[in-house]
Amino acid sequence: MSQKSKRSLKEKFALKNSLIKEALSEFLGTFILIALGCGCVGQAVLSRGMHGGPMTVSVGFAMAVTIAVYVSGGVSGGHINPAVSLAMCVTGRLKWTKLPIYILAQLLGAFVGAAAVFGIYYNAFMEYSDGKLEVTGPNATAQIFATYPAPYLSLINGFADQVMSTAVLLLAIFAIFDTKNNSVPKGLEPIAVGLLIIVLTCSLGMNSGCAMNPARDLGPRLFTAVAGWGMEVFTCELANFHADEIIHFCNILEVYSQASGDSASQDCWAINISLFISLAGNNWWWVPIVAPLLGGVLGAMIYVIFIEIHHSDPQSGEENEAHAKYELTNMA
Amino acid sequence: MSQKSKRSLKEKFALKNSLIKEALSEFLGTFILIALGCGCVGQAVLSRGMHGGPMTVSVGFAMAVTIAVYVSGGVSGGHINPAVSLAMCVTGRLKWTKLPIYILAQLLGAFVGAAAVFGIYYNAFMEYSDGKLEVTGPNATAQIFATYPAPYLSLINGFADQVMSTAVLLLAIFAIFDTKNNSVPKGLEPIAVGLLIIVLTCSLGMNSGCAMNPARDLGPRLFTAVAGWGMEVFTCELANFHADEIIHFCNILEVYSQASGDSASQDCWAINISLFISLAGNNWWWVPIVAPLLGGVLGAMIYVIFIEIHHSDPQSGEENEAHAKYELTNMA
Amino acid sequence: MSQKSKRSLKEKFALKNSLIKEALSEFLGTFILIALGCGCVGQAVLSRGMHGGPMTVSVGFAMAVTIAVYVSGGVSGGHINPAVSLAMCVTGRLKWTKLPIYILAQLLGAFVGAAAVFGIYYNAFMEYSDGKLEVTGPNATAQIFATYPAPYLSLINGFADQVMSTAVLLLAIFAIFDTKNNSVPKGLEPIAVGLLIIVLTCSLGMNSGCAMNPARDLGPRLFTAVAGWGMEVFTCELANFHADEIIHFCNILEVYSQASGDSASQDCWAINISLFISLAGNNWWWVPIVAPLLGGVLGAMIYVIFIEIHHSDPQSGEENEAHAKYELTNMA
Amino acid sequence: MSQKSKRSLKEKFALKNSLIKEALSEFLGTFILIALGCGCVGQAVLSRGMHGGPMTVSVGFAMAVTIAVYVSGGVSGGHINPAVSLAMCVTGRLKWTKLPIYILAQLLGAFVGAAAVFGIYYNAFMEYSDGKLEVTGPNATAQIFATYPAPYLSLINGFADQVMSTAVLLLAIFAIFDTKNNSVPKGLEPIAVGLLIIVLTCSLGMNSGCAMNPARDLGPRLFTAVAGWGMEVFTCELANFHADEIIHFCNILEVYSQASGDSASQDCWAINISLFISLAGNNWWWVPIVAPLLGGVLGAMIYVIFIEIHHSDPQSGEENEAHAKYELTNMA
Repeated sequence: MSQKSKRSLKEKFALKNSLIKEALSEFLGTFILIALGCGCVGQAVLSRGMHGGPMTVSVGFAMAVTIAVYVSGGVSGGHINPAVSLAMCVTGRLKWTKLPIYILAQLLGAFVGAAAVFGIYYNAFMEYSDGKLEVTGPNATAQIFATYPAPYLSLINGFADQVMSTAVLLLAIFAIFDTKNNSVPKGLEPIAVGLLIIVLTCSLGMNSGCAMNPARDLGPRLFTAVAGWGMEVFTCELANFHADEIIHFCNILEVYSQASGDSASQDCWAINISLFISLAGNNWWWVPIVAPLLGGVLGAMIYVIFIEIHHSDPQSGEENEAHAKYELTNMA
Repeated sequence: MSQKSKRSLKEKFALKNSLIKEALSEFLGTFILIALGCGCVGQAVLSRGMHGGPMTVSVGFAMAVTIAVYVSGGVSGGHINPAVSLAMCVTGRLKWTKLPIYILAQLLGAFVGAAAVFGIYYNAFMEYSDGKLEVTGPNATAQIFATYPAPYLSLINGFADQVMSTAVLLLAIFAIFDTKNNSVPKGLEPIAVGLLIIVLTCSLGMNSGCAMNPARDLGPRLFTAVAGWGMEVFTCELANFHADEIIHFCNILEVYSQASGDSASQDCWAINISLFISLAGNNWWWVPIVAPLLGGVLGAMIYVIFIEIHHSDPQSGEENEAHAKYELTNMA
Repeated sequence: MSQKSKRSLKEKFALKNSLIKEALSEFLGTFILIALGCGCVGQAVLSRGMHGGPMTVSVGFAMAVTIAVYVSGGVSGGHINPAVSLAMCVTGRLKWTKLPIYILAQLLGAFVGAAAVFGIYYNAFMEYSDGKLEVTGPNATAQIFATYPAPYLSLINGFADQVMSTAVLLLAIFAIFDTKNNSVPKGLEPIAVGLLIIVLTCSLGMNSGCAMNPARDLGPRLFTAVAGWGMEVFTCELANFHADEIIHFCNILEVYSQASGDSASQDCWAINISLFISLAGNNWWWVPIVAPLLGGVLGAMIYVIFIEIHHSDPQSGEENEAHAKYELTNMA
Repeated sequence: MSQKSKRSLKEKFALKNSLIKEALSEFLGTFILIALGCGCVGQAVLSRGMHGGPMTVSVGFAMAVTIAVYVSGGVSGGHINPAVSLAMCVTGRLKWTKLPIYILAQLLGAFVGAAAVFGIYYNAFMEYSDGKLEVTGPNATAQIFATYPAPYLSLINGFADQVMSTAVLLLAIFAIFDTKNNSVPKGLEPIAVGLLIIVLTCSLGMNSGCAMNPARDLGPRLFTAVAGWGMEVFTCELANFHADEIIHFCNILEVYSQASGDSASQDCWAINISLFISLAGNNWWWVPIVAPLLGGVLGAMIYVIFIEIHHSDPQSGEENEAHAKYELTNMA
């Protein structure tokens, strides 16, 4: 492709609309995240530990995040995760109007990425379990794509696990990109994020595989549902789930919303939660969607409250710096 | 959160007192260190090696340090370790008046971090040992939080181990941040510190888990004491501890203090040591508190004496250096 | 060697012809890639897992790529891979006239690198299998040098595997070096490429060892053919290869070329494919040569179409950006 | 320590003699290399694989090199290896007069580092083999300190192994520091060197542990000789050593020196080699001393001949290049 023909191609096809650009970028980034990340799980599971184990999965998935952020970072910020996008909206770093497009692109990318893993290891899947695609049991392969809870896990514990791990994820991402803190030099943030994923999967991965990302979990789960594993991927229940836990869970939320004093929103909460749990309650699939979204916002808030808000005032001392930074964000 | 509401929040809550900011930062950093670091140990122990092993613990704990330093580095220096803070005071890089606040914040952060690990893995702890929280035996889980000596370890060897590993830690940290040596570029020091932790835990981790940090050890130990493991976490003794070792140890210290010639302080030493050892002597818990504090100062001293003090004179030389650096940026 | 004698050496031997320089550089880079990379596989295989496993092979091979790119990056771009060189030609980043020389140098370097591995582990090879150099069976050692398909792998799946992994490789390389995206700082790209190789080998390595590089595969395969393993290294067949797969494969290609509408080239395709498959078809060796070349171009195209082509116009926007960057270097 | 007292300390003790500074720096660097590096081997061996394995040794030793280079890099260049120092002398980057001091400091540092490992793991050593310090057999611990050949290794193969691995080491170090190639940014070279050590130990570590450093091998070997392992650490023979190999080896050297045509030096060679081999010949200990020195120079030469000598001329070309680099910093 000569420079000339490239320029003419550019004239014809280059997108002027930055939102479509960003959607393409998030789609491609999330595709790579899932194709390589779930590929690592696939290699470890399908080879029955011969070509992979906890370390290759942890390091491999982390580096999949790194590469995905390199691919999509410059155009769309490299969120590749609805929980990240939501936290960016809440803290005023992404327009709310862009959020649905970002999330849709991420979900689609994850779905197609899961399809790529299935395609590349099609022969291996057939060999592994004589063509049967199972969600549970010794030949289960559904956990290559979406996350499933450990047998001991209760709803509250699993929910808290996803809230906390995503909170730490966002808290650390905010630190890594905070130029008033000890931020990572430009162009190396994706590697620091990768190192963050290594420690998160090594420390908080045992309960339910540490999804921390609604698109990473729902996209591949949808794919497995249509590709032959069936609806069992959605109806897989938490093993030691008890009714009293739901009630306890609701009570906590009620107390919390009462404390915040807004009685209208409180009723709304109570009704919504009741409805939701009566429908989805003792299934796992909704936890790695709802909990990371909450956790991400929580982590971002904690970082802002503990660290960012106390940086010295931009008005007085830091005008020069703020100015330089403004240009940086425009550029980055 | 719009920019406006953020600004008003900032006006209301932003801390003017830098010491409180720094305490918050050290608290949050140490919380992350323990939540993620001890989380790695927890995952390896509670999964009985299925989801982790020596490598995930070593790399995971190291990256927990990296992330913790990114979170707290820009505000409070990212010490997350009383031994580091003390060495910084001794070498004139931190005001002595700040030291108690730093240490308190670190201890609190470590305590809360340990609670987070227990909370997130509550179901797993219950499953692991049928609800019993044990300090010793095949189902022991106390070593997830604090460090315990290997069965063969003697007091002197364990004490020397903690002195030496913390000395190397501080020595290397001083090198990593010494801009007149081959220092790490700004913003990447936390990653270099993480690599340092990898080698320290791979090489000096076998005797007693390589705490090198009084807050990292005491905070979680206090948590286990109140959370159900009981006072056994403090009374756990060194297995092959012998009375003659204490005497030998005291003699060494006496000789040392006699050599320094100050007879008043010498008596004081002798009395204190005698009292202390008669109380805590053959327990392990005080070693990863006292030894790292000594070792950190020792390591900092060694770096200053071997390397830093011989850098060319700041008055005459620094201009040259500044000049050299200017050329470097042009060149690099 | 004094500065003087070095200068005179330089006058005598320094190459003015940049193509020869680049060929030397690619030769040396690919030599190091194979000597160290295949050395890692050799250490794991010949020690029967005692001194290596999936993790040392994955990380070791990745760091071999990193070092090889450091050695050859500044002079020839550090391609060390015909698939990379071809993709660079197709996207106008390397002159087509240089391509044959690059590929020849890479092949030679890989051949000599394989010889170095055999030489350094000569005693170990002799010990391993009593002097017999086998391609299959429990004492097989040919897989130390070239890649071989897993027993379950079909032609289409293996071909698609190599197309996809090389596509992701090139896509990510383009992102890593794209200064309008979130590119890696100059001098650290080889490390980012190494991290990319880690995730690729951890996620897509199970089907056939993830060659992604015609020189890396053919060079060592040629060496084994002449060094004692014999022609079996070329005639090793895909285990569950079926005639109908070839036919299906041809049909796909026919449909594709019919769609592109050029009937002359279409006939040419059909004849070439038929001839080729009747000759080489059910052997594996040609797949890691042809598929990576296709995949590399595909990945580069995808990056250009999804990301690069949409960057804001160089005429208008770049000046502002250059300005902002100038301030950045002053600031950093 | 206040700034004042520090300044007065500086006045009293700061060394004006740069050679003594450099010796201190090399001593400290090599001490850390051995204390941490051999510590990693010690942890893996003494825990019988419980707390370490091939991966922790490889990564740990590599990061020990990284830290050692950070500690000593700014003052003495961070050689911590006589083979590096010799190669630097041969290529005119270190004064020949400094070489003996560098080597002595490195040897001393390695000796003291080995003593530190023995001290820190004293209890573990006693526990491991009931107080017996053995060089061979299932309870051997001498390999924690110095390197020993694999049972299958012959003299020529072992010698070639050390020549080649050290050649690649120096070749890559020259590339990493060559600012006219794609050099690593200032302050990150030690990390790149660490990554290089990872791949070298993963790929060329099986024959004899990949010493590549006369000080790293001889210093700890001397320590073990005096600390209780006895002279067996020097008399350990290559298992399948044959007299005809020596003769063959001598013949190669004779042919080589005849080819260089200088009959006086030729006789000298022949006599020296004969004497040497009759004394040390079938022992292993001299190989990791002599071979790395040769290999280091060889690798440096190969880099100069293949890459460095062909960089465009400093007189005419450097201005262009400097210009290009200026543009690069603006752009990057």
